[in-house]
Amino acid sequence: MKNIAVVLAGNGVYDGAEIHEATLTLLAIAQQGAAYQCFAPDVEQAHVVNHITGEEMPEKRNVMIEAARIARGNIKALSEYKAADYDAIVFPGGFGAAKNLCTFAFDGPDCKVNADVEKAIKETVAAKKPVGSLCISPAILAKVLGDVKVTIGQDKGTAEAIESMGATHVITNHGEIVVDEKYKVITTPCYMLDANISQIAEGATNVMAKILELA
Amino acid sequence: MKNIAVVLAGNGVYDGAEIHEATLTLLAIAQQGAAYQCFAPDVEQAHVVNHITGEEMPEKRNVMIEAARIARGNIKALSEYKAADYDAIVFPGGFGAAKNLCTFAFDGPDCKVNADVEKAIKETVAAKKPVGSLCISPAILAKVLGDVKVTIGQDKGTAEAIESMGATHVITNHGEIVVDEKYKVITTPCYMLDANISQIAEGATNVMAKILELA
Repeated sequence: MKNIAVVLAGNGVYDGAEIHEATLTLLAIAQQGAAYQCFAPDVEQAHVVNHITGEEMPEKRNVMIEAARIARGNIKALSEYKAADYDAIVFPGGFGAAKNLCTFAFDGPDCKVNADVEKAIKETVAAKKPVGSLCISPAILAKVLGDVKVTIGQDKGTAEAIESMGATHVITNHGEIVVDEKYKVITTPCYMLDANISQIAEGATNVMAKILELA
Repeated sequence: MKNIAVVLAGNGVYDGAEIHEATLTLLAIAQQGAAYQCFAPDVEQAHVVNHITGEEMPEKRNVMIEAARIARGNIKALSEYKAADYDAIVFPGGFGAAKNLCTFAFDGPDCKVNADVEKAIKETVAAKKPVGSLCISPAILAKVLGDVKVTIGQDKGTAEAIESMGATHVITNHGEIVVDEKYKVITTPCYMLDANISQIAEGATNVMAKILELA
């Protein structure tokens, strides 16, 4: 059975992993006959957002501890990830991908990438294993890999920022994937488009089918 | 388009709504052509649990604010729920259902039910509209309705506690549903069994299909 690493950026669209994208990635893996292991960096969240008001809350939360809610407790620190032990790695989206895994939401193309995230991506690519990436998380791959072909959907400003890091952006619609054959990177827009939850399932399913084909 | 109310008990299996059950309930609704509106009681969580260690954290969190993470911000206070405005109501599981919506996890058959939860269930049943309930949340229905037929899977102690509140418990396996025709209550065990995420999707899909048939 193939084993897929899933990197979670917290737990909630505005400051962590987007919950539908994360859950439906896990579902797509299981439904296609593979196993998964969740990972997250053991770091403090950039901030905590009240998901009703959109305002910051005066709290601190840890990315891995919050991500464990999606993983039902079964989660490892991303520092423990070894590409040799897994067949592929996947990054669901949510603002956490652009706030906790890298600082793209704050710094745009000048963003910094979490060291464990950068190492995990580079190791996986070096091992010629697939990297899946949903929603806004392709911005991390653009920063780490440079000349990679990705999609974040249709948002012009984000696409330009991604291209300014050396990547090529491809416009896509709901559920569509973009495959970079050189790096084995597979991306899909998910909630970077005005999507419903069925369309998220479709995108996650399509990314996972291609990953398992290439893994 | 039919409109289904989904009641969330927070965000995380050990102190809130079980995230896979909640997300896959929303997915099942959308995939079967209906719309949903999330609700949660605007109350403090019974406690906050670190989902890696299982230990209590010295924090306070609000059930509705945390549940908004699953709902991507689109959530209403359960006090605003009117059965007349919806075609059915569904309760995903997770310990939050037995800690925040009622106190079954602490008090067993002597539990108290949150007043908004009790009102929502009674109003929906009085309007002859279906009530769906996953995992441990049928315990709430047993307390509120008494002589209702439900399943929580195969756990003997929990089944006995539920029967001691006047309900009838039916043993089930993964994805199976139990239908109480009198109350239009549909239940499925989900993670009350040692399930994988595909089996949760199956249970949520089956519950929703029956709800939409009866609604």
